[in-house]
Amino acid sequence: MSQLRWDPLKMIWVVIADQNSRRPSDFILERQEPLTSACPFCYGQEEKTPGEVFAIRPEGGRPNRPGWQVRVIPNKYPLLRIEGQLEKRGEGVYDIMNGIGAHEVIIETPDHLRSMPSFSVEELAQVLRAYRARLIDLRQDARFRHIIIFKNEGLAAGATIPHAHSQLLALPVLPAHFQVPLSASKDYFQRKERCLMCDIVAQEAADGRRVIRDDGEYLVFTPFASRFPFEVMIAPRRHHHDFALLNDQDLLRLAEVLKDILRRQRSVLRDPAYNFILHTAPPVHSRPGKPGQWASLPYDYHWRIELVPRLAKPGGYEWGTGFHINPTAPEEAAHFLREIDLPAAG
Amino acid sequence: MSQLRWDPLKMIWVVIADQNSRRPSDFILERQEPLTSACPFCYGQEEKTPGEVFAIRPEGGRPNRPGWQVRVIPNKYPLLRIEGQLEKRGEGVYDIMNGIGAHEVIIETPDHLRSMPSFSVEELAQVLRAYRARLIDLRQDARFRHIIIFKNEGLAAGATIPHAHSQLLALPVLPAHFQVPLSASKDYFQRKERCLMCDIVAQEAADGRRVIRDDGEYLVFTPFASRFPFEVMIAPRRHHHDFALLNDQDLLRLAEVLKDILRRQRSVLRDPAYNFILHTAPPVHSRPGKPGQWASLPYDYHWRIELVPRLAKPGGYEWGTGFHINPTAPEEAAHFLREIDLPAAG
Repeated sequence: MSQLRWDPLKMIWVVIADQNSRRPSDFILERQEPLTSACPFCYGQEEKTPGEVFAIRPEGGRPNRPGWQVRVIPNKYPLLRIEGQLEKRGEGVYDIMNGIGAHEVIIETPDHLRSMPSFSVEELAQVLRAYRARLIDLRQDARFRHIIIFKNEGLAAGATIPHAHSQLLALPVLPAHFQVPLSASKDYFQRKERCLMCDIVAQEAADGRRVIRDDGEYLVFTPFASRFPFEVMIAPRRHHHDFALLNDQDLLRLAEVLKDILRRQRSVLRDPAYNFILHTAPPVHSRPGKPGQWASLPYDYHWRIELVPRLAKPGGYEWGTGFHINPTAPEEAAHFLREIDLPAAG
Repeated sequence: MSQLRWDPLKMIWVVIADQNSRRPSDFILERQEPLTSACPFCYGQEEKTPGEVFAIRPEGGRPNRPGWQVRVIPNKYPLLRIEGQLEKRGEGVYDIMNGIGAHEVIIETPDHLRSMPSFSVEELAQVLRAYRARLIDLRQDARFRHIIIFKNEGLAAGATIPHAHSQLLALPVLPAHFQVPLSASKDYFQRKERCLMCDIVAQEAADGRRVIRDDGEYLVFTPFASRFPFEVMIAPRRHHHDFALLNDQDLLRLAEVLKDILRRQRSVLRDPAYNFILHTAPPVHSRPGKPGQWASLPYDYHWRIELVPRLAKPGGYEWGTGFHINPTAPEEAAHFLREIDLPAAG
């Protein structure tokens, strides 16, 4: 079983995976292997994956058969397992718990050759509905402190299977990446009784230099302190803490915005590899340990989507020091993404 | 001038660089360009770099001429500039300061073809002496909150010039990567009146499963919550907060240990790309703003060196989520690095 281990110095949890444990020769021999057999995410290959936990089948039909538009399956090689107890324990200065969690794959389309920017708005909305369905379902599980939905598109962003898919990780801990913004927002709210992200969105909209698109409902902009060139944030203009509470109409509107920015990114940067990360309020269990009862944090969280293209060869600074150095000012990145002329067709 | 910008949500400083600002076409056209002209770090090319700020010339000789063994120069394309004032200012929810700092290159050898693991112990000690000299000098500057010395070896680790070199960044802020361990150590000391790193080192030495080498003076081990496969830490067994206070004899002993682990790493992992990061106590100015007067933190910091080989294709999890998933248990990594039979010659 995998373990979650706490580093008391770096203040982070790390998963020490037991699946496919890798020895030195694995790293030395590693090559980019072509996919020799049929893609497990295509129609007719459903039996190659674990049974689906959710699917959108516009024409109906039986589970684990062709006919789906979006299909969610447990990862065949899960980093974290759903069965078992956390068994939190100490070991001297260290802390450990079992690698309990969920690790799912959201197959975004049956079409092996299409990717998000070329989806129709309705197809994109269906992917977002699948995200929502899995968030709502997994939040029932009181063991989970956070649910991350993300997507690695392209080899340079870490994708290993080319067929369009997102991933979901339900975690028994809140990772630092999500803990820090949450704490910052809480502190800010306590001092000012305003949402930090609301203030950021308002300032960006009024300033305009980093705005790519503003339709009054969603603001699409490059963050003031962008860590990476052409990093983009999508956030609702009005306060809203929880992506999972969006209705179908909301998701259709968001899909429109998402498609637009993905097309801009594809056009300006020529189909870059990128990461997509959904930040939404973590489940908060009103009665810890009692599944089925949770509430979110309405005042101090503001859901948002991050899009991070993977453009540059790694600069080494970040790897060496954890310190981000961005060679493209966000004002300039916004300029390019804002001014591009998109062809009318998707 | 570059800017340092504060992200109030992620709680990090980011450098927005103005040197070589990069437009979309730069990323699209980027190729690995072979070095066509003579290497600027070789003998006889000294005039191609900014004038040296430090050098070790065992036979004597004039600055900026051949004859050096280790040579430290300002980076020709500095991310941060030494001249100017910080001009700290706010902009709504954001904070900015000018990109003031130092960015230096430590050329480790005049020999274009050699790299750290093949240095003699004395040659390695000279590099460490250059680190020490630059730390001591730059700490006089009251504008700097932290000085990072690191090394990217190999393309996969971010190196752009193959000639063996390390880098130094003196920063007007303390980056999160260094702030978090410092805070954790301070908290630990306040609660327990013991150094956290001392406790980690003692526990690792007693446990032994993650120990690669223990000579009673330095412990070389794989961290309990290693983020990356075959990550290694070198730390003094007895409490010591400040690398810059080591004497020549100490540095010679450390060079011996460093050479040993670099050879083990090279042998087990076949000459991997890697990052080397020196963590040492930040300068603390007893009278802020008055250069020349500083003291370090003797009780709650414990200097150490991190070695992080860059083995795997990026997994995507870390990039997508900031959450580290390590496919090689540190116990296993330590086993391989401990048991390898090294040939007697360097």
